[in-house]
Formats: sequence, C-alpha cells, structure tokens
Amino acid sequence: MNTGELVDLGRQLRVDSVRASAAAGSGHPTSSMSAADLMAVLLANHLRYDFQRPAHPGNDRFVLSKGHASPLLYSAYKAAGAIDDDELLTFRELGSRLEGHPTPQGLPWVETATGSLGQGLPVGVGIAWAGKRLDRADYRVWVLCGDSEMAEGSVWEAAEHAGHEHLDNLTVIVDVNRLGQRGPTRHGHDLDAYARRFRAFDWHTVEIDGHDVDAIDRAYGEALSTKGQPTAVIARTLKGKGVQAVEDREGQHGKPVPDADEAVAELGGPGDVRVEVHEPPSARALHSVGSGQTDLPRFEQGDEVATRNAFGQALAALGTARGDVVALDGEVGDSTRAEFFAKEHPERYFECYIAEQLMVAAAVGMAARGWTPYATTFAAFLTRAHDFIRMASVSGSGINLVGSHAGVAIGQDGPSQMGLEDLAMMRAIHGSTVLYPCDANQTAHLVAAMADLEGIRYLRTSRGESRVIYGPDEEFPVGGSKVLRSSGRDRLTVVAAGVTLHQALAAADALDRQGIPVRVIDLYSVKPVDRATLRQAAEDTGCLLTVEDHREEGGIGDAVLDAFGDGRPVPRLIRLAVRTMPGSASPDEQLHAAGIDAESIAAAARLLVEEAVVA
Amino acid sequence: MNTGELVDLGRQLRVDSVRASAAAGSGHPTSSMSAADLMAVLLANHLRYDFQRPAHPGNDRFVLSKGHASPLLYSAYKAAGAIDDDELLTFRELGSRLEGHPTPQGLPWVETATGSLGQGLPVGVGIAWAGKRLDRADYRVWVLCGDSEMAEGSVWEAAEHAGHEHLDNLTVIVDVNRLGQRGPTRHGHDLDAYARRFRAFDWHTVEIDGHDVDAIDRAYGEALSTKGQPTAVIARTLKGKGVQAVEDREGQHGKPVPDADEAVAELGGPGDVRVEVHEPPSARALHSVGSGQTDLPRFEQGDEVATRNAFGQALAALGTARGDVVALDGEVGDSTRAEFFAKEHPERYFECYIAEQLMVAAAVGMAARGWTPYATTFAAFLTRAHDFIRMASVSGSGINLVGSHAGVAIGQDGPSQMGLEDLAMMRAIHGSTVLYPCDANQTAHLVAAMADLEGIRYLRTSRGESRVIYGPDEEFPVGGSKVLRSSGRDRLTVVAAGVTLHQALAAADALDRQGIPVRVIDLYSVKPVDRATLRQAAEDTGCLLTVEDHREEGGIGDAVLDAFGDGRPVPRLIRLAVRTMPGSASPDEQLHAAGIDAESIAAAARLLVEEAVVA
Repeated sequence: MNTGELVDLGRQLRVDSVRASAAAGSGHPTSSMSAADLMAVLLANHLRYDFQRPAHPGNDRFVLSKGHASPLLYSAYKAAGAIDDDELLTFRELGSRLEGHPTPQGLPWVETATGSLGQGLPVGVGIAWAGKRLDRADYRVWVLCGDSEMAEGSVWEAAEHAGHEHLDNLTVIVDVNRLGQRGPTRHGHDLDAYARRFRAFDWHTVEIDGHDVDAIDRAYGEALSTKGQPTAVIARTLKGKGVQAVEDREGQHGKPVPDADEAVAELGGPGDVRVEVHEPPSARALHSVGSGQTDLPRFEQGDEVATRNAFGQALAALGTARGDVVALDGEVGDSTRAEFFAKEHPERYFECYIAEQLMVAAAVGMAARGWTPYATTFAAFLTRAHDFIRMASVSGSGINLVGSHAGVAIGQDGPSQMGLEDLAMMRAIHGSTVLYPCDANQTAHLVAAMADLEGIRYLRTSRGESRVIYGPDEEFPVGGSKVLRSSGRDRLTVVAAGVTLHQALAAADALDRQGIPVRVIDLYSVKPVDRATLRQAAEDTGCLLTVEDHREEGGIGDAVLDAFGDGRPVPRLIRLAVRTMPGSASPDEQLHAAGIDAESIAAAARLLVEEAVVA
Repeated sequence: MNTGELVDLGRQLRVDSVRASAAAGSGHPTSSMSAADLMAVLLANHLRYDFQRPAHPGNDRFVLSKGHASPLLYSAYKAAGAIDDDELLTFRELGSRLEGHPTPQGLPWVETATGSLGQGLPVGVGIAWAGKRLDRADYRVWVLCGDSEMAEGSVWEAAEHAGHEHLDNLTVIVDVNRLGQRGPTRHGHDLDAYARRFRAFDWHTVEIDGHDVDAIDRAYGEALSTKGQPTAVIARTLKGKGVQAVEDREGQHGKPVPDADEAVAELGGPGDVRVEVHEPPSARALHSVGSGQTDLPRFEQGDEVATRNAFGQALAALGTARGDVVALDGEVGDSTRAEFFAKEHPERYFECYIAEQLMVAAAVGMAARGWTPYATTFAAFLTRAHDFIRMASVSGSGINLVGSHAGVAIGQDGPSQMGLEDLAMMRAIHGSTVLYPCDANQTAHLVAAMADLEGIRYLRTSRGESRVIYGPDEEFPVGGSKVLRSSGRDRLTVVAAGVTLHQALAAADALDRQGIPVRVIDLYSVKPVDRATLRQAAEDTGCLLTVEDHREEGGIGDAVLDAFGDGRPVPRLIRLAVRTMPGSASPDEQLHAAGIDAESIAAAARLLVEEAVVA
C-alpha cells in the first residue's frame, strides 16, 4: 500500500477499535489507537499470512503482547477479511470468540493467549527459535509490545535469549505511548531508554515516529534486512491518537471513548479499506524423522534407580522414536537429567539458562508450531513460571513440564531447593495432568504417555534412588492407580506416591506383622485421580491415610478428596504431609522430621485403627 | 587491612569453605572460592556492621544472592568472630543453623533467604529503597551475585528499579566465574556483556580482576563515592580458585573438593585471621509517627461497595494510624485502590510499575528493615511472584499481599485477568494466612488485623460492588467464620466467601421458601480455617456444600476439608467451583456459566438434600 492508503487503513483500525469498544461498553480503544499505524503498515506491507490457512508453515507469526489492545487486533482481522463487521461488534459478549484479551481457543490466527503483560515477547522468542533451529523455515515473528510491559523482567529474559541466539527472524515493535494504566510510564517518551537496553542485549534498534507510516514502513524493511540480530522498532506514539477527548490524556485507559459517534466522525468516519495480505512463501512442515518405535528403557525390579534418571533415559528414547519431541532446560540439565536427551538429540535441545519464565514461554511457542516440548527444572523453580503456566492453560497449549528434586527427600540442600508447593500449583491449573511416579519403569511409561495428552502435563521426579517395584511391561494408564497391598481384611488404606510410596509399603509390612492388614494405593496419577479405586477402598476399609512429600494443602490429600466431592459418603481421613519449615538434614532425617516416613505412617495408622475400634 | 592481610583472609575463607563442605560431605566450595577475595575485601575494609547488634539501624546490609555459596558466608562469619570453628563444621547437619542455603530463621545476620537465584538483588533493592526513602539512614546495601543468575529476568527488573530510583546506596558485586552448574555460562568471562547491560539500566560499572585485592578495594571505594547511581562491580574470577584439581574446571559444581586435606595444604593451610569489622555509624530507627488510633472506614449496611474500595480506604486509614505501614503496587493502583493510600501517604507509597517479582522482593526487603508492607496487584498477577512468595516464607518474612480482581466475577476482561488459582497458591505457602472478605466492613477489619500477623498474609478482593451485610463494629477474628443463616432444622450447610457468599445467601433464602432450611457460613478466614464451626455444621446438618469463585483445586472446598483431616467422621460434600475456561461475559453471566451463582447453589442443594432422603 502507498502512504495515503496506509494512513486510511490506520484511521479505519482506530475507528473500528472505537466502535467495537463502544458496542461492548468496555475494552481498551486508546491502547489500540496508539498502535494502529504500526499495525496497518505491518498488515498491508510486511506480514505474509494466509488467513484461510493459519496452519500454513510459511506464515509469518504475529503476537499481540499488549493483549488488552484486542480491538486493534480484531479490527485488523476485519480489514484482512478474516471476520466481518457484525462479528467485530460482538466484542466481549458472552459466547463471542472476540474476547477481552485474545486467545487461540476460538481464533486460529492467535498464536498464544495474552493479557498478562510481558509474555508475548518470550513466546515470540520460542516461535522464532523454532523457526531457526527446528522448522528451518524463513517465516518471521512480529511481536507488538506496550511500553509499560517493558518493566517485566521476563521481557529482558527474552531479549537476552533472542540476542544471544541471533534471532534475526524476530522483530519486536514497542508502542511507546507514554501512558500506562495508572499514569505515565517510567520512561515516558524517552525512546532511547528502551533502545539502549535492547542494544545492550545485542539487538538492532530503530527509533521512529509511530504515526509516520513511511517511517514505519522503512523501519520494518530495515528489520527484514538486518541479519544476525533481532530488531526492536521503538515507536513514539500517542495513546488515543486522533481523538482529542482522549489523545495523550491520563485517565483514559481501559474504557470506551466518551462519545464514540463523535470520535468516529473526528477520525473521518467509518472506512471500508480491505487489505490483501501478502501470501506466505511455500514451505513445508519439517519435523525430524523418528524411528516410530519407542524403545523405552527397561529397569530390573529390585534395582535402585532415581526417577529423574529414568525420566532422562525415557525422554532420550522418546526423542529417538518421535521427531517432534524437543527438550528445554533451565541450566540444570545435569540435575534434571535432561542432559541425557541433549547428548542424543543436541539439535532438539534448548538451553534456556536460569530463566524459567522464558523456558516455559519458549515451550509454548514451540508447541504453537507443532512441536512437543518437555521443559525441565527443579520442581521448586517451576513456581517462577507460574503465571506463564497459567496463561499456557488459557491458550490451550500442550506442553510437558517436569520438575525434579521434589520434596524434603532431597536432603541437605534445604527448603529453597525443595519442591513442596508444586502439586498444589499444577493441580489448580485448568485442564492439567499431574503425574508423580515412584519407580523407574513407571516413570518411563508416564514420560511417553504424557506426550499425547491435551493441555498442561506435569511430571514430578525425585532426586534420590528408589527401588524398582514394577516390571518394565507393567502399564500405567493416566487416571489410574495401583493397589500394591490388599486383602479382604484391610483395616485402612494408605494412599501415597513417589518417595512416600516406598515408606507406605514398609509401613504396611510392619503393620501386617502387628496384625493390622492395610491396603496400599500408589496414586501415581494425582490428576486425574482414580476415583473408582479410591471409592472402593473407602467402602472396603472405611479410613484413608494419605502421605505426601509436599505441603498439606493442594497435594495428594486434596486429590484423594476429589473422589468424594459429589455428595457421596466420605471416608474418615488422616493426612500426613510436610507441616514445618525444613532445614538441612539427610534425606532419611528429613522424611522422619516431616513425619512422612514409614514409622510415622505406621504410628498414624495404628491410631486411626484404634480410634475406629473405640468408635 | 593491607594487601597481604587481605590475601591471607581470602585464602582462609577458601580453606574454611573447603573444610565446611568436606565435613558436610556436600555443598558448594568451588562457588565459594571464586568469590572469597571479593568477600574478604568487603568484610575487612568496607562493610560497617556490628555482629553483636544485627538490628543496629546503622548497619550495612549484605545479601548473598548466590546462596549456594553459603560456605563462604559462614567462613566470613567465623572470620568476624560471629560463629566459632566448631559451629562452622556443623554445616548442613540436622539442627544446625548453617543450612545449605542461608536463611534468617536462625542466623540474625542474614537479611533474606536465598537459594532460588535472581532474588538477592531484588530484595537488596527493597532494602536500599527503604534506606533512601523510609529509614533515611546512610547504610549501604551490598549484594553478591553469581554470573549464572544474571539470566533471570528478575535481576533486570531490579536493575531497572535501582537505576531509575538512583539508589547509590546499593552495590552489586557480580562474581563472574564463567561456570554455571551444568557448564559454561552464556557470556563466559566477557565482563563487558554484563557491564553494558547494567549501564543501559543507568548503573555505574567497574570491571576488575576479582582476585586482585587492591583492585577490589579500589572498586568498592569507587562504588562508595559514586553518587546518583547504583554501582555494579563486575569481577573476573575463577571457580575453585586456588586448588588445581577444581580451579576453572567443569563438573566441579555443588560438591566437596576431591581431597580436602590436600586442597587445604595447597591453599596454605588453615588460617586464624580475625577481622575487626568496621562499626556502623550511629543511627536510629526512623518510623513515621502515626496517630496511634486506627479510624477504619465505616460502611452503611445495605450499601453497595466493592471490597477493593474498602481495602484502599482501610489501608489509607491504617497508614494514618501506623507509621510503619507502607504500600507497593504494580502500576495498577487505580484498580487495586492502593492509590487511596498513595494520595494520603505519598512518602510511603512505592510504585513498582509492572514488575511483580520486584514488588514482592522489595516488600521482603522493607519488612527486613522493620516496615510493614502491603503489596498489591491483580490476584492473577501475584502468580508472577510465586517463587518470591515461597522464598519469603522460607525467610519467615512478614509481608501483606493483596490480590484484587478475583475470580470470574470480574466479567468481560476474560481469563487472563481472573485470579482463579490464587487461593491454591497462597494456601500452600507455609505459615500463610488467607483472607477473603465479602463486604466492606469485613474487609476493613481484616486489612487492619493482618498487619500484626506472622508470616505471609494474603487478602483477596473483588472488583464489583457487593452489599454491605455486616455492621461497622462487627469483629472478624482471623481463624473465625460467621454463621449467617441457621436453624435447628438445617438440612445442609453452604460454605462460601467473597462474591459467592452473597449468592449463597440468595440461594438460602430461595431454599427456605421451598421448605429447605440451610445453614450459611461465611468462611472469610480461608486459612486458618474455623474448624469448630465447620465440625458443628457437619454434625448438625450432615452435608456441606462449598461454593467458590476459584478453581476446584486448592481453594475453599479444600480448606473446609482441613477441618476433617484428623480421622474424625467427614460429612458428605459437594463442591461448586470454576471448572471450565471462562471467556468474556458480564459478571452475572460469568457466575451463572461457572455454576456458582444462587441458582446453581440452590439446584445442587436440592439434589444433595433429596439424595440424603433417598439414602
């Protein structure tokens, strides 16, 4: 498009942003208006995208990091013919796919859900990384950010990665409109404040007037021709541009303009510019070719093997079988054992250094490109990425997360390194799957099974060795459990998983010798939970005792109760969990101090059984 | 100390780091050895600290951000005479206060627990900010970081704040030893890579050889004389410095040196250097003087008031009464209503921009200096700071967190803005208090009450208005609840809090008209939970129905079950919670779609009662 047409398109995007927000009675038109010219030039002259084929492997990828500017995005969709005006005006209505903040759930052109700021660039880095190292296609990734979100550390985590990885297929456009939600941003219209930060992280930068369509056009061209570095286009804009009542004024964030009709008239009235978006170049989806045959590692019953080791071996085997499997790690691959995968499949291994937010975001970006990522760090440090995991769930993203060094059982390193809240965090993620194996063969099977599930899948592994109790051909359906001790005379049921499962077995054997037979359930699938088996155990034994190397809230104890939340009779219950702040100590000392070792289980079981007798 | 003495002290710190780790059989001596000279010069020539009076208001503050280098810290404590050699050798033993990663719980000289990387600098920024704006004392804050942790975005969030706030009382020392846990860091020994990033964030930088004690001494002096900017001392060091078997070698992270005796000999044998640390200048603890009298806002029963508004008014009133109360917000103070505090107490209000990790870390830093911080953002965005909240709990820090815009009830903005996992996250934090008020007077009382609790306290507020149902003089003890509907004939008990409490009351009234009397409990104290009242309700009515604007995992439903986790009979139970992914819709539509409105409650209650009749 030429200058005049671009100006018209920018104006139309503003008009439609104003109209959509007015129809909804809420929304962020002023944040849309500042970026309208930036979007117009991108859509008309630089983006290569087939809206009829959003999965086209050659399509450029656009991420609206400032997700509240959704009216602008939907107005652009309309200009490109992807949606019509009637749909545009359903913005924010019940049932409309044009939500307040964009999500891919109904809109195939959205790469990732945004609305929590500072996440678009990290996900964009993941897509661009995939473009360079996995897809090896020449699509470009364009990320539109607000200036306020530059305060998020995750933006600089992403900048660091993109610069270091020479992601010249990535362009970030920063809409410096000077005003955040509450008032002025830290740097106002000081474009250089942003530019020099990006340059320090080895980016190419261009500073422009974000309402000069020719300057924008040249800047995007410069980004396209810059090799070896990502480019940041830092654009000076005005919030609410073009409507005097709101332009560059405080107090106009996140609300319709005061008089929409007047604003539309001031902007020149409704437009009917239709953009012919450039076609993507031909390309094909490129997955590494796998053997197709998953030869999972096999472990001897009775051997002592850490589940983190079994994870590493299984992931490496899965990578051999499946060309779509990739691994990301936060600079602890020697601990998580992701390094086993790295050794066999270095071309599909992504070192994220100590940057867990970027790691999860990059996994989301790669999943959006059709890859099957496994992202690993200590379970404790996945909490760093909680907001990213939450947003991945809003996206409907299919990613695998693996947290090692779970619980007090890690021993001397102390509480900063212990995953004690991870089950609570992961269970509360919508649509998640939470798995917690107790032995090596079980781990291997679950690592393979999780690859094909929907949504966020989490596997919890342990640092220390544990006895292999299952044969290598045993099956472990997700949503199942294993009854490991059972008789017709069981007085209660002990439910455990991971390290405490072994403690439970020892306790059961001790109790049995004392004439108290107990059932033991291995609850390796914490979510979904095996309701039928738990209900049967409740019916048969009347009491359940849960024991977990995790805080008492949100973990296995609560998971068990999911089986009884529908009004049916609930069994009596005792929960053993980590209720104090651990210090340093050996693994055995830790389990004992926390009251989750075999001795503690047996003592609690005896109490429960005796009380039942008294009652 | 002169050059020779400093060299000897550095050597001794290495020797003691080797000895402590050898005694423990684990630990991070090589990460300690790289920073030993940096620590020696600081301790002997620049730090002003009275180890006998760690609370001295004039003390400088030291934060070991690379917490795994704890052997170095403890060796420095020994050199300063704060602990003896026998205690040094208890490192990592059960019961020793010399944990694998330092925590303030037993060690009064530790400002904040570290061990999750990238957190020391943000907390240090909080302390330095307090020094400038609250304490108005001239203590300095020294933070020792590793190079690996520079990959964490939180470091750059902190750098941004410190530069912008001109915190020239803050010095970060980066121990660039080139090797992370798994292998080489991203930038190796490229000191300028770090220096130019800090400079871009408006810091003064000095690059030095971190084993040249004179250069270190000069660099610290330069930091002290630099005004208007924080200083970063970027030091080239060697991991494992001084012991050939490990020096600058990969694969030597996080383990004792192979032969400790030989290493000690190679380092010149045990030393007995004793450091006379400089005395702090005289200073006094400076809190703003409050009125002493808390005049909480009073709301009329029957009025419609958003709990976030009541929070803002109450916090402003609390700030008037108490000079120790400060507020921090993540650039959404107009939404959280923290702006009400800002208007009345601008000198105690801290704008953190959109940087939730920094916000929570700064709160921890201010709490370490004796202030009582309230940190606020949307409940959803507190997930961004999960790892910081977790570590604050390890520190035993006393901070108040307030999350607004809880649940689907926010309406059109959609799931990215909805706090739906916050109760699960906050309940699983060790020692936390979780409060969720349903009306304005209740909110005001809880805001005041939380200030005096121990540990992490969380208050959840709502966006929309809700009816004031309590009088302004009603009391709301933490750990209590309110029974709002009750009769001798109650067929079941509905347990709710916040927005669903009002839905529960409406449902109860409808059910009552249908001849089904139900009890209604306002569970405003989600943790600790009112066990006695819940148990009584279970005994009286047999069934509990929980309803919450939160995911089904980890929230009110699970909190209720805390009352029955000790083996006693458990009532039958139905939980209503948000089980789908919401889109955009009005608040009422959202509550209905999620099945947590009055109609859904009444329908579920009827089902439960009818089943009970059948059973």
